[in-house]
Amino acid sequence: MRRAVALAARGLGSTSPNPVVGCVVLDRDGRTVGEGWHQRAGGPHAEIHALAEAGDDAAGGTAVVTLEPCDHTGRTGPCTRALLDARVARVVYAVPDPTDGAAGGAATLRAAGVDVDSGLLGDEAAEVNVAWLTAVRRGTPHVTWKYAATLDGRSAAADGTSRWITSAAARADVHRLRAESDAVVVGSGTLRADDPHLAVRGVEGAVQPLRVVLDTEATLTAGARVLDGAAPTLVAVAEDAGTGHLPGETDVLRLPRGADGHGLALRPLLTALHARGVRSVLLEGGPTLAGAFLAAGAVDRVVGYLAPVLLGDGPPALAGGGITTLTEALRLHVTGTAHLGPDLRITAVPVPAAAAGRP
Amino acid sequence: MRRAVALAARGLGSTSPNPVVGCVVLDRDGRTVGEGWHQRAGGPHAEIHALAEAGDDAAGGTAVVTLEPCDHTGRTGPCTRALLDARVARVVYAVPDPTDGAAGGAATLRAAGVDVDSGLLGDEAAEVNVAWLTAVRRGTPHVTWKYAATLDGRSAAADGTSRWITSAAARADVHRLRAESDAVVVGSGTLRADDPHLAVRGVEGAVQPLRVVLDTEATLTAGARVLDGAAPTLVAVAEDAGTGHLPGETDVLRLPRGADGHGLALRPLLTALHARGVRSVLLEGGPTLAGAFLAAGAVDRVVGYLAPVLLGDGPPALAGGGITTLTEALRLHVTGTAHLGPDLRITAVPVPAAAAGRP
Repeated sequence: MRRAVALAARGLGSTSPNPVVGCVVLDRDGRTVGEGWHQRAGGPHAEIHALAEAGDDAAGGTAVVTLEPCDHTGRTGPCTRALLDARVARVVYAVPDPTDGAAGGAATLRAAGVDVDSGLLGDEAAEVNVAWLTAVRRGTPHVTWKYAATLDGRSAAADGTSRWITSAAARADVHRLRAESDAVVVGSGTLRADDPHLAVRGVEGAVQPLRVVLDTEATLTAGARVLDGAAPTLVAVAEDAGTGHLPGETDVLRLPRGADGHGLALRPLLTALHARGVRSVLLEGGPTLAGAFLAAGAVDRVVGYLAPVLLGDGPPALAGGGITTLTEALRLHVTGTAHLGPDLRITAVPVPAAAAGRP
Repeated sequence: MRRAVALAARGLGSTSPNPVVGCVVLDRDGRTVGEGWHQRAGGPHAEIHALAEAGDDAAGGTAVVTLEPCDHTGRTGPCTRALLDARVARVVYAVPDPTDGAAGGAATLRAAGVDVDSGLLGDEAAEVNVAWLTAVRRGTPHVTWKYAATLDGRSAAADGTSRWITSAAARADVHRLRAESDAVVVGSGTLRADDPHLAVRGVEGAVQPLRVVLDTEATLTAGARVLDGAAPTLVAVAEDAGTGHLPGETDVLRLPRGADGHGLALRPLLTALHARGVRSVLLEGGPTLAGAFLAAGAVDRVVGYLAPVLLGDGPPALAGGGITTLTEALRLHVTGTAHLGPDLRITAVPVPAAAAGRP
């Protein structure tokens, strides 16, 4: 199953709106005879790839799958059918399928006489699929807020210089994060300050994420790097913003303004992204937009790249959000730390108390 | 030698102005027959403790010491004499003694026919003695800046609340740091905001550090917690500050004002502390004082306690220091990370480029 989870991870960023799934097929003697993972929506499921590789050796063997095999006919046939056709004797899966249409695979297999077990490495398999599982449960994408800062929490120096606070190793890791995400979101402040490109570079086989710019007043100009053709781009503006200056082919999403009159309403944004098949969002900046997402309880994971640098002045990595006293602070649980060149990467998730308070 | 370094570490915080030293004595068959460490200035050196425990078994054996045995008579006799009297056949030490008066021990031992080797685990033995070695070389104490902050670099919420950003485990670790330091330094801003106590709590056998408050205008009041009798306290004030309101027994140090007219001149402070036998300083705050120390190139080590908390507002952990653009940033090298309860501790030292630029 550990191998199946690793196979599943290869699909991150390219399978939405589908989950990532990995599958290992063992023959009747327990030897691995087939491996597969779901590579892209509309393409064969993990089981189909693995069974194809296994061929006749699957008969009487075991299929180890990270997610309960599907029981429905979508763009591809049901995996339960394929497993039965291959005369697999046993199916072990990690996480039950929570969707209305696709669930029921385990029952179908059992009814056909297949030995079915579930729950093996369930936590690890759920973790690799956390974006999809969260999105299925909630109807809005899973949101990761990524920031880069100095040890004293600055995202740039006083004069605005920020290239490069973090190392090449940390920046390469950000491209990996982007490649695993369906959409990358920035605000208009970052747009004006940095003219970011936001496409994935240096990740082999990466599917480019949707670049989403939250540009309330439609200040984006036609020459912005984010409007090149390297990846699709969605420009979210206020309902009453004038967009006549944007190129005719620009994909524009009109949203209500935020409740406090600042920025755009985030819930309608996330719902609209979900409707477009986005299951995972990487929120890249800037500090005010991150503050708005955090205040809305719309951040599921925080990934901080901390450079061993001190500035003592300059814009903070996070601003706004309305927290005025320590008891209101957003408390997180650190789930991982890593060294990337000279820098540290800290991964954390909001603690349940905070999660419970979200709208 | 690893054992000797661990023994040496037990003396941290109680041996100044002496170094910490650990010693293990092996008999002629290589069995450990004596252990010792230097426990307090004026008390027996590590070798004397270890030789006493070894007794006659030291004859023909080996003494493993973290620092070159001393060759001078101070408040105690020379360790070279004691090693020769015990008829030790071999001495292995890690770090040469850099002081003018005490050095030469290796030569004396060799001249008397003892087999002498040096350099074993030199880096580790130098690290445990880094404060003393730095102070001997430079004539000013080794300075560690300790801060506690949220992941977004805030040392308190917008309303000033800061108890507790970090966990009990992190706070206990700060008391360990204090216990290992000869002096703890805070500025008047922290004094007014927090009325800190600064004494060590919860560390068995700890020698209380000198509490040093930098109080330029002598705004300290007689009722301040730092003026209780739990530990010695030094109040540093400007040369022209009025101190008539302080209790008569208050230990007052008058210093020139800083070059820019703000605060106190730090070099005279550090020189004065060194003259009082202080070899290691723990700088505890606040952000402006830390900025001044960093700007003066007077920080040798940074220990940051990062709580997995986000605030989005509130005072920064570090302020001032005069850095306006990224190329001027103080770059550090991370030497260690640790998990303390939910928090992270990051230890770092300025990189050589920054060290080279210091006055």
